[in-house]
Amino acid sequence: MSFEAPRGVIAPILTPFNDDLSIATDLYVELAHKLLEDGCAGLAPFGTTGEALSVGIDERIAAVRALIDSGIDPAVLIPGTGLSNVADTARLSRACLDMGCLAVMTLPPFYFKNVSEDGIYRYFAELVAKIGENARIFLYHIPPVAIVGIPPALAARLYSDFPGQIVGIKDSSGDWDNTYAMLERRWEDFRVFVGSESFLLANMRNGGAGCISATANVNPAAIDHLYQHWQDDDADTLQQGLDDVRDAVMAYPMIPALKATVAEFSGDDAWRAVRPPLVALDTERSAKLAEILRGIGFEMPGLE
Amino acid sequence: MSFEAPRGVIAPILTPFNDDLSIATDLYVELAHKLLEDGCAGLAPFGTTGEALSVGIDERIAAVRALIDSGIDPAVLIPGTGLSNVADTARLSRACLDMGCLAVMTLPPFYFKNVSEDGIYRYFAELVAKIGENARIFLYHIPPVAIVGIPPALAARLYSDFPGQIVGIKDSSGDWDNTYAMLERRWEDFRVFVGSESFLLANMRNGGAGCISATANVNPAAIDHLYQHWQDDDADTLQQGLDDVRDAVMAYPMIPALKATVAEFSGDDAWRAVRPPLVALDTERSAKLAEILRGIGFEMPGLE
Repeated sequence: MSFEAPRGVIAPILTPFNDDLSIATDLYVELAHKLLEDGCAGLAPFGTTGEALSVGIDERIAAVRALIDSGIDPAVLIPGTGLSNVADTARLSRACLDMGCLAVMTLPPFYFKNVSEDGIYRYFAELVAKIGENARIFLYHIPPVAIVGIPPALAARLYSDFPGQIVGIKDSSGDWDNTYAMLERRWEDFRVFVGSESFLLANMRNGGAGCISATANVNPAAIDHLYQHWQDDDADTLQQGLDDVRDAVMAYPMIPALKATVAEFSGDDAWRAVRPPLVALDTERSAKLAEILRGIGFEMPGLE
Repeated sequence: MSFEAPRGVIAPILTPFNDDLSIATDLYVELAHKLLEDGCAGLAPFGTTGEALSVGIDERIAAVRALIDSGIDPAVLIPGTGLSNVADTARLSRACLDMGCLAVMTLPPFYFKNVSEDGIYRYFAELVAKIGENARIFLYHIPPVAIVGIPPALAARLYSDFPGQIVGIKDSSGDWDNTYAMLERRWEDFRVFVGSESFLLANMRNGGAGCISATANVNPAAIDHLYQHWQDDDADTLQQGLDDVRDAVMAYPMIPALKATVAEFSGDDAWRAVRPPLVALDTERSAKLAEILRGIGFEMPGLE
């Protein structure tokens, strides 16, 4: 069984909030269209960057529906759906797939720690069964946040036992050896996305599919440029340019910093809002970050 | 504002599953009645021990409803409702309170790590507002599992700003100093429950309310006996007896071991089932645990 997954740069789109912390659908839709125009091959709503775990199930479904209603092809959407329990994760995944989304991106169950690989395997097996025949799942490996991860041996087992249903992975381990352990197996129809554009060039040189990176929210065109030109002579220089922007942002708490960046460069302060437990970047640090970014030539046209 | 919270032993009741991993309501109701007959002052459905995070929102509501429909007074129920996001946590909490439950027990948002106390404070403030005026919340501090915790200074701030709404804490830190830091403040109408009966005597000697402990699922009468007799001369001996049973169980993975214990002593193998990512105790280890428990005189009458 084969399917056409997007390759390239996928943005785990930020979730903007109104003053009352409801989702600011207008800003959300606007950013989504901009990211796709700027070179993103797809969007992953409600990843970690989208404050997924701070958003309710029905809120997520309504937001994905709003993207589609605004004219975005659901076939470029890979919403995050991992909620630790099979019942709710299957309900949310089913809703996304029924709306035509290409696939879902699913965390392992992350409440219990130090669980066995057999237990996590069984979770995904139950999930695939519960979603039903056209389940299509990207594994979401992000041990720095979720603590519980999906190591390569477990990904191999899931890929092998659920062909066409477990279709790829977002590896946000920050550990290139972990990514390479999957790439070197050259699994057919299994897409390996790195969770940071810092590894984009390495990933492409080793058969990877692209990246699903937080920073794609603010720097999509440049990241896509490297994706398109990774075989060019100046690819290492392009990679360095991406790393400089990323390093500047990552010196601050990531999600508040990305939202502050959008606010600073679009002039729309509404973008600063985060849901608890996150806390917005204060004005001083926000201005400092913008100054640093301008200093290295960063621009973010297209949101006014 | 004052309210009558139960003091004593509260069981974070185990959640039994059928072969298809749906909740085994008959076994659930049977255990609930037995625990209350054996001295528990209340039940906390869907704590960590009840595999809360492996159970969907609507499944939890239906299970609490089944307990009430079976004749259990909702005023002894404190269901766990923490889901990291305010929308779903408020919905589940509201449903429990509307059924007449005494209170809910709520984890801090536990996906993002290393978040600020201000961020967690804001989460609970939003939650209280969203649940509405008669919100009644026990804080659930269990950093060994949730990683994110609610330290005493934050508990103090929440108790002080939301009187009658933030009404107590289950401290499952396993750190007596942490519990004592709250007890020594002698907050009026704030119930401090320890998350393990190992600290029950110490908690009672310092003004605590009791314990909400996993082991209360299998050893309720003896734990309640210490609760009733903590001022007796032989209280330390009673505490030692509780510790012996607890130590025997805790030598194995806790939840599978507790379910194996119920299965061994009730003769009903259905109790062995756990939801992924947990894995049931194998037969050999289960029998060994039962043998050790019998060896120290442990009994579990009343479930046949």
